[in-house]
Parts: sequence; C-alpha cells; structure tokens
Amino acid sequence: MALIGSLSRSLSVNRLMTGRGINFQVFATQLSSLPGTRGLAFKIDEQLSNLVHRNLKMTEEAQKTEKRSQNNKGGEHSKGKPGKFILKTPKGTRDYGPLEMAVRREVFDVIHSVFHMHGAVEIETPVFELKEVLTGKYGEDSKLIYDLEDQGGEILSLRYDLTVPFARYVAMNKITNIKRYHIARVYRRDNPAMTRGRYREFYQCDFDIAGHYDAMIPDAECVQLIHQVLSRLNLGSFTIKINHRKILDGIFGACGVPVEKFRPICSAVDKLDKSPWEDVRKEMVDEKGLDGSVADVIGEYVKLSGQVDLIEKLKNDERLKNSADAQVGLTDLALLYEYCKSLGCDAHLMFDMGLARGLDYYTGVIYEAVLVAGQSPKEEGTVGSVAGGGRYDGLVGMFDPKKKNVPCVGLSFGIERLFAIQEQKQRAENCKLRSTQTEVFVAAACKGMVHERLKLIGLLHEAGIKAESSYKNNPKILNQLQYAEDNLIPLVVLIGESEVQEGVVKLRETLTREEVTVKREEMVATIKQRLAKS
Amino acid sequence: MALIGSLSRSLSVNRLMTGRGINFQVFATQLSSLPGTRGLAFKIDEQLSNLVHRNLKMTEEAQKTEKRSQNNKGGEHSKGKPGKFILKTPKGTRDYGPLEMAVRREVFDVIHSVFHMHGAVEIETPVFELKEVLTGKYGEDSKLIYDLEDQGGEILSLRYDLTVPFARYVAMNKITNIKRYHIARVYRRDNPAMTRGRYREFYQCDFDIAGHYDAMIPDAECVQLIHQVLSRLNLGSFTIKINHRKILDGIFGACGVPVEKFRPICSAVDKLDKSPWEDVRKEMVDEKGLDGSVADVIGEYVKLSGQVDLIEKLKNDERLKNSADAQVGLTDLALLYEYCKSLGCDAHLMFDMGLARGLDYYTGVIYEAVLVAGQSPKEEGTVGSVAGGGRYDGLVGMFDPKKKNVPCVGLSFGIERLFAIQEQKQRAENCKLRSTQTEVFVAAACKGMVHERLKLIGLLHEAGIKAESSYKNNPKILNQLQYAEDNLIPLVVLIGESEVQEGVVKLRETLTREEVTVKREEMVATIKQRLAKS
Repeated sequence: MALIGSLSRSLSVNRLMTGRGINFQVFATQLSSLPGTRGLAFKIDEQLSNLVHRNLKMTEEAQKTEKRSQNNKGGEHSKGKPGKFILKTPKGTRDYGPLEMAVRREVFDVIHSVFHMHGAVEIETPVFELKEVLTGKYGEDSKLIYDLEDQGGEILSLRYDLTVPFARYVAMNKITNIKRYHIARVYRRDNPAMTRGRYREFYQCDFDIAGHYDAMIPDAECVQLIHQVLSRLNLGSFTIKINHRKILDGIFGACGVPVEKFRPICSAVDKLDKSPWEDVRKEMVDEKGLDGSVADVIGEYVKLSGQVDLIEKLKNDERLKNSADAQVGLTDLALLYEYCKSLGCDAHLMFDMGLARGLDYYTGVIYEAVLVAGQSPKEEGTVGSVAGGGRYDGLVGMFDPKKKNVPCVGLSFGIERLFAIQEQKQRAENCKLRSTQTEVFVAAACKGMVHERLKLIGLLHEAGIKAESSYKNNPKILNQLQYAEDNLIPLVVLIGESEVQEGVVKLRETLTREEVTVKREEMVATIKQRLAKS
Repeated sequence: MALIGSLSRSLSVNRLMTGRGINFQVFATQLSSLPGTRGLAFKIDEQLSNLVHRNLKMTEEAQKTEKRSQNNKGGEHSKGKPGKFILKTPKGTRDYGPLEMAVRREVFDVIHSVFHMHGAVEIETPVFELKEVLTGKYGEDSKLIYDLEDQGGEILSLRYDLTVPFARYVAMNKITNIKRYHIARVYRRDNPAMTRGRYREFYQCDFDIAGHYDAMIPDAECVQLIHQVLSRLNLGSFTIKINHRKILDGIFGACGVPVEKFRPICSAVDKLDKSPWEDVRKEMVDEKGLDGSVADVIGEYVKLSGQVDLIEKLKNDERLKNSADAQVGLTDLALLYEYCKSLGCDAHLMFDMGLARGLDYYTGVIYEAVLVAGQSPKEEGTVGSVAGGGRYDGLVGMFDPKKKNVPCVGLSFGIERLFAIQEQKQRAENCKLRSTQTEVFVAAACKGMVHERLKLIGLLHEAGIKAESSYKNNPKILNQLQYAEDNLIPLVVLIGESEVQEGVVKLRETLTREEVTVKREEMVATIKQRLAKS
C-alpha cells in the first residue's frame, strides 16, 4: 500500500504515457463499450457527444443498409435463422442508451415533481386499444395508426395519443372528476424524420383536469404548470401564447365565414407560426374558397398579439361587440390573466390571436409554449412548440353511451423536443453527464482482496451508499482509479493488506486525488459527510 | 373566520349527521369519482379495497359483456360510430387507476434505488421488434407473440420479453460489457387469468450484467440484488434457491440420460415446485421415454436441498466425482456461496437441486426467489417465484454475425406479483394509501377568496411545497376540510377576510385538527418544519 500515494500522484502522467497500452476492459458501463474508448487519452465531453449521437447514426445507417438490402431482395425478409437478418430496430424507432436515458430521467423527474406539486394522480392504460376506440378521432391522420394483425379475436390498434385513451378511461369508469398525468409512448406510422427528432414511437407527457368546475381556475392551473416546468428545466426564456377557440369562431362569424368553414379556416390560421400571412391567405381563398375580402379582415385580427389591453380593446371592437362567442372568449381570457397573475405565472403570457392549434376537439382556451429564439446553437427563430393544450369539453361525451359530457382541460409536453434541447444545452455547457449514480468505488491495491472488497460493498450498500467494485479477482490499481475518474465517481475506498490488518481504509477524493486514512468503523459516517458536502 | 374553530371541532359530528347530504362533488380525485363516495360516512380502507378491485371487476364484467355481445353479433364489430361499441380495454389488459399506480411507483422506487446502488445504467428499446428478431427464441411459445398488421413495410411483432431485445441491443451496438436495467411492459397472447393476476400486457423488470469477468462475481451481485430488493420491500421471509445447469447436466449424464434428452428432462424437473415427484417421474418415463430406473436415480438427486455441506458431499459423490460438468457446477456454487457470505446476502440461500428453470438459454448458475409460506392471507404454501434468473452465455452470439459471444447473467423480478403482494399487505395492515403527495390544502373560510387562495398556492409552489386548492370560486369550508381529511393531506392553510387583513394564515393539522395562527411571511418556514417532523 506504500506505493499508492506515488502511484496516484503520477496517474495523470501515466495516463498520457501508457494511455492506449492499458487493458481497460474491466467494467460494465457504456463508456468502456464505446468503440475507441479502450485507451485512456480521450475527453469525456467528446465521448459524450459521440455517445448521444451514436444511436441515431447507427439507426440511420441501419435504415440505409436495410433499404439496400430490401432493394436486393425485393423487400423479402429472411426468416427464422438467427444471424442472417439485418440487425436493426424497426423503421422510425431507436434504442436509447444509458446517457440518453439519464437525460430523460432528469427531465421526467422535473415534470413528475411538478405534477405531484399539483396533487395529480397517475394512471396507465394499455398500449393498444380496440380499433374502434380510435376510429373517427383523428380525421385524415387515422391512416397513421398502427394496426395489430387479426390473430383471431379483437381488432386492435396501437394508441396514437394519450388523450383519446384518457377520454375512454373517464367514460368507461364513469368518472366525474380527476386530475391525472400519464407519461407513455405513442405510435404513428408517419414518415420518420429522425435527424429532426421525429420518430414513429415517441413519448407523450400529458396532464389533464376533468370535471365541472368554475371558469378558468383549472385552465389557469394548466398555464401555471407549463410555466413551472419550463422554469425548472431552465431552458432559457419562453413565451406562453394563449388564445380562445370562441374568439376565433367569433371573428370568423363576425367576418362572414360560413359556419361549416370555421374548422378549415381555423386549420389555415394554425399555419401562421410557420408560414407568412400571404400563404395562409392563399390557402383560405384558393383552397378553402373564402372570399378574398373576408380573408383580409380575418388577417387584420389574427396578426394581432398583446396583453390584457388587447383584450379590452377587442371587447369594444365594432365587429366583435355583437359576437356572443367572442365576448365569452374575451371574458374567459381576461379572467385567465387575473388568475395567472395571482398564481405568479403571468410574466410569459402573450395573447396571440394567430394561435389556433390544429385539433378539432378544442372548445375553449388554447395555449402553446415556445422557447424564445437564439437560445439553441443550431436553430434560428423559435425552436417551436415545447408544450401545448387547451380545453376540450366534448371528447368524453363521444364515449359515453348517453353522451354525458365531462369538461376537460389539459396539456402535453413536447417531451422529445425537451430531451433534445436538454442534451444540446448540457453539451454546450460541457456538462459532464453521468449514466450512473455511483458514489463510492471500492478498490484494492494488491492481489487477493476480492472478499475484502465485497465485504466493504456489503457494508456500504447496507448504509444506503451507492457503491461498485471490479468484477475481476485481481484488477490493476491503475485501472480501478481510472474507472472512478472516467465515471465521475466522487469517492474511492482503497484497501491493501496493511489497511485490512490495521482495520482502516484509505478514502480518496477522485477530483482532488487527496487521500485520508479512516477507521473502518468510521468509514460510513465519513463518506456520508463528504457526500453531503459535495 | 370566528366560526372556523367550532366548525372544525364539530366536523366529526357533522360528518355523521349530514353525511350523505353534503354536496361533495368538488375536487378531482379518484376518491370522489367512486360510486357511493359522495356521502362522507365511509371508511377509507373499505374504499381502498374496493378501488383496488374495481378495475379488475370492471374489466371482467366488460369481458363477459363483450362475449355476450360477440355471440349476438357473430364476432362483428361496429365501426366508426362512437358510443355504439362496448367500452372496454382489449382482452387480457386493464387500466391502472391512481391507487394502483401509487403502489406500483412505491415498488418501482425501491427497485430503482437498488439498481442505482449497483451502478446500473438504464436503456430503452422499442415496444416492437422486427419479427425475425424474435423468431426462434421462444420455442413453442412463439405462437403467443403479437404480430402487427403488414401495412406495407417491415414485418413487426410486439416484444415478448426484455431479454431478447437486450441481446439484440448488445450485439447490434457491439457492446462488450454493460450492466443495465430495463423496466417495461411485454406482450403475450396467452389465455389471460386475470383473477390470478395473469395478463397479456405486463411489466418486466430486468437487470443484467454482460461481459467477460471472473467467475461468480457478477453472479453473486445478482443474488445480492434480489436479496436487497426483497428485504427492502419488507414482504416477509424469503428463500433464494440456487442451482447450476451444469450440475443438472452432470447428474443427467452420470445417470445415463442421452444428451438429446437433457433439455426435455430438465423441463420435467422444472415442474417439481408445482407437482409431486411421482408426476414428474411419470412425465420422464411415459412422455419422455426415460428408463424408469434412470428416473429413480435422478429422483434421488433432485429431491436434495441444503447448504454448503451438500455441495461438499456431492463433490465426493461416487457418480458425480467423474462428471466434469457436475464438478464445474459445484465449484461455481461453492464460490458463489463464499462471495454471497462476504456480501452479507447468504442468509436466505438454499441449494435446491430440484430448481431447473424452464428457459433453454441458461448455461450456468440459476436462481429463484420465493416468499415463504403462510405470509399472504389468501395463499397457502409458497406464493411462487417473485424473482429469478441465471447465467446465459450463448444468447448474444445468436445475434452476432460472427457468432461472437458476450457472456451474460441477469435476473427478472416478478413485478406484477410483487405489486399484488404489496397491495394485499397494505390492505392487511390497514395502510392508508395515497394516490397523491399533496402536503398542504389551501382553504378559505368565506366567499371571494379565490385570488387570495391562488396567491398562496403560488407562494407554496415557489417554495417547493406540494399544495392544492379548490376549483370552485366559493367552496364550502366543510367540504374543503373534508377533502383534506379524505385525501390525507397533512396540513391546511386557512384564510378568511380577517386573516388577509392581518397578514396571517391559520395553519391546521389535519390529523389533530389543531390550529395555530402564523404570520404570512413565516408560513413557508413553519410548514417546512411541520412537514420535516411528520
């Protein structure tokens, strides 16, 4: 054990000198399983960035290979014989490796904690539903639904979102009120654009409040929740745009749009965040047969955005003064603003009359959160919606035999986008991400220490301390210390024959490489102190 | 606000007197959505037990209804028109409500924490795989695989377990070592026996160590992990049976079983935990064509169980002395015992020579944990396996183009059974389960307080305190206090006009109904103190 001190002090030199020569095949983590990481002369952050992109690239390459192979084979699949087929995940899907999962867990933990802050309960529904549950809910997007093969029995489809299963759950269980969250993956046979993070299998993260309540109190809570999650994720400045379906309908009505065109025109307005007004106007007039002058009046309204003063102005607007719909919507929004102010979440609100949100089922307040431009290194302008939702008072009734309705308001986080932004942010900040939470690595300085190491592991686990050791009988000391450094394990417990004889351990801080000798019976307490400080 | 004191003191009387009369429709929880819970005179524990069973019953009833309806319609489904079909989840699946999810989360949290104690990383794979990935892995159980409809593209199947996707992941990413966990649902078109907790969609909870390591160190870690999880779940006494495939093979060889009958005979031995030896012998002789005398000799061995002394005895056994396989297996087990002793997890070990475990792919140590008889109110004898696993050194090679192997050892928790046992236990202990984590309920004693309540909610959330309030403008004070009691929310912040004027709040302990007046600026600190104490 006398050598340990000088060994560890010279470790940085050793790393450079013996780098590639060291047999670094010892431990079970994704780090050592990466190509090119057996040598020690690498930078963690480079490796991270590689790792984060690895799966993506592999999937893409596998896609290409598969395409080629399908072309060769005319789309046939070799069946049954292992080793003969192309090793890949299905089109539009991917595996998530340890570091990606660590980022996900971080984001989920924040969202979870906010959901629980609001007293939400969690529910879970099956990954598939009777096909007829999904039928007639998604319009022309129904073609994107994954069907299961008819293997004799019911006709099933994979869920397309979490909202329809929620409405089915509420109706089926005759629930009159619930505040629930549900985080789970949904399935869409879309054209995957994986480089832009669009997959066929992806997470949705929904929070909904169902029940007959007084106006705008639950709606304000939804806005508050978005505000809280985005603030806590600390992704930079954001805006929560709000609008109201009844204000839009009121405008359409006051401008002379026929009722049957309300939804198509609304869906045209929905494109305003991606297209200039000219294109939207063109769609209204050319595709949807609206009179040009009517479109122009709509244009005057949907280009407006502002705060409470705009609500006041519109209340007295000549055209909207007589629209019952518009007045209801404006009164709702004014109240929403007040409640948000009381809740302390009005700072990022923006009344945006161009916000329409595509889904037909919204009936009241709608909202959408966007991160403000220029924050993400790769993107210009806004990075698009990271959360959105609104009030939908009619969906549950579609499932109830007696059409009994339960009003709902809810939201969904664009969780895959939040993951991607969080990963980007952490790369940009050179954050050293960990895929494990290990606090102590138990190392031995000489041979024949495996039982002593295992005893220490047993002790540490018993005390609730996260601890690992090598799976080798006689691992090299350099490899063990290096493993602790590479995996950002803050503390190392070091033993040699003399330590065992004297009933002590050496406690080493990985960052400073400072070592102290501690009595075995004081080990746990000392470690807990150190961990509490860091 | 003067009335509050007497109101709250007389609350228990009021509950009995006005019980069914109170309009208790206010808040969003599963409690108030239960039939028969609008009145207040109910017992929480009865309700719990009802709730836990509710989904199950509903699913079963829906199943029956569906069967009837299918008989009437000849299996046809009404399509497209909402409200016309039977509202149900697919056969063999169910929804999980708030209280069930709360129990699940508890169990998951324990398992998670132990996984992280061991420095395991998390991965996630798609819910479906190319069909050919699953082909040839599950023997005759392959008929239970859910296939997706061929909608033009790849032929896909829902995963059947997490082990095959893990092996595919390791091979595809050319990983040489990893210690990973994966908790996710898998799919089997089995005959559901939902009353016994057998579903077509259910969770698996896997931990595996892949890599070339020294003998028995990772294997001992798996045993330790099972030991730790079952201890922490506190489900009562348990036994971890261990055995070794090579010991079984050694016995079969030494008794004169032809090599091609090793696996079928092994699968007969596997039934020993459910059937008496006579039945198993019958299967060996009648179905599998083994000589009766050979079966009898096997019987002598597989009925044995013991500890290290049995290993020693068998090492010198006349028949096994010359079996290389048996000797390797026995040496492994002896070492495993030693390592488990060092790790402090040998107390529940039992060397059970009748343990065989069905799956073909095991190649070394196998283990299975059972809870000891008489603990569960409903069951006699052991409640069956709650965890199991073993070493499988050949599976990854099935996916590698060059058949390159990565040795693996792992385990899976019978998590659905653990959930059921945990629920039973909590019911038996009259545990008051909560589906939410709310710490503070903000209540108002008079009308017109909605903004004041929301301001307090904003303050409390800002301080990280989980807080809820009513969605009504002017909720009745009795209903608010009752909600806090029913939902086991420990603290209530009470305000009336005088409190607002004086800049104070009343802080009420739900359990004791004791009230103190606290300055508004001291509210957060006082609440944190109270919560820390409880």
